[in-house]
Amino acid sequence: MENPQPTALDDELAVADVNERFYRALEESDLAAMEALWVHEDWVKCVHPGWELLTGWDEIRESWEGIFQNSRGMRAMATDVSVRIEGDLAWVSCTEILAIFYEESTTPTSAVTTATNLFRREGDEWLMIHHHASPVPNAIPISESETLQ
Amino acid sequence: MENPQPTALDDELAVADVNERFYRALEESDLAAMEALWVHEDWVKCVHPGWELLTGWDEIRESWEGIFQNSRGMRAMATDVSVRIEGDLAWVSCTEILAIFYEESTTPTSAVTTATNLFRREGDEWLMIHHHASPVPNAIPISESETLQ
Repeated sequence: MENPQPTALDDELAVADVNERFYRALEESDLAAMEALWVHEDWVKCVHPGWELLTGWDEIRESWEGIFQNSRGMRAMATDVSVRIEGDLAWVSCTEILAIFYEESTTPTSAVTTATNLFRREGDEWLMIHHHASPVPNAIPISESETLQ
Repeated sequence: MENPQPTALDDELAVADVNERFYRALEESDLAAMEALWVHEDWVKCVHPGWELLTGWDEIRESWEGIFQNSRGMRAMATDVSVRIEGDLAWVSCTEILAIFYEESTTPTSAVTTATNLFRREGDEWLMIHHHASPVPNAIPISESETLQ
C-alpha cells in the first residue's frame, strides 16, 4: 500500500514541529540543532529581540554561538502558535516566553516576545529562512508568572 | 503582439512598489490607501513598533485609524529594502525611518525600525498579509540625522 499524499494538515504539523525544534535548540543552547534547521544562504535574515537585523547564515550562526556561550541556560517556549502555508513558504506567528540565566546572576532575565518565523520547503523538510522577534510591551515579569514553573 | 509573460524581475518590482505604497499611505495618513493594500481576512497580522500583536483585518484597520488620528503628520521612508519571492508569497525586509508629529508637540518623535513585511499574490496584485516592525537599538535620533531633511 502506497503512502498517501501529504495533506495540508501534514504540512501544518511539519511546520509546527520545526518551529518547536527551533525553541528546543534555543533552550538547549544546541548550535548543531540550530544549524540543522536553517537554510545556509547569504540572504536569510534574523532579528533577535532588541538587536539590529542580521543578514546571511554566517552572521546568524555567529549570533547563536555568542548567545549560547553567554548564557548559562535558558528556558524557552512558544505559545499562541499560528501556522500559515502558501505553496512552499510557511509563516509562523507566536509568543516566545524566555528566561535566560547569565553567568553573573542567579535569577533569570525574563522576556516575552512576539516572533515572526518563516520557513521554506526544501524537499521533505521545512527550513527556517527568517526570524524576527521583538519584545512585547508590559509583559508580566517572570517572577510573577507561573508559565515557566 | 502579445504581452510577454511576467518575469521574476517584474514580480520583484511589483512587490517593491506595494511596499513603497505602504510607506506612502503611512506618511500621508491615508486610511483608504492602507485599506486597499491589505488582505481583509481574520488571520492577517500586524505588530507595530512596541505594540502587542494584532490579528485580523478589523483590529489592524482600527489601529491604523487610531495612529492616523493621533498624529499631525508623519514622514516615513524605507531603506535597505530586500525583496524575496517564493511562488505567490513575498517577504520584504527593510529599515523604516519615521518621524511622527503629535498634536501636543512641535518637534517630531523619531524612530528607526526594522520591518518584516509579507505580501501574497492575489490575481495581478500583491497584497499585505503581515507587518512586523520593531525598534532598532541605538538608532541615531532624527535631529542628528540628515536622512529626512
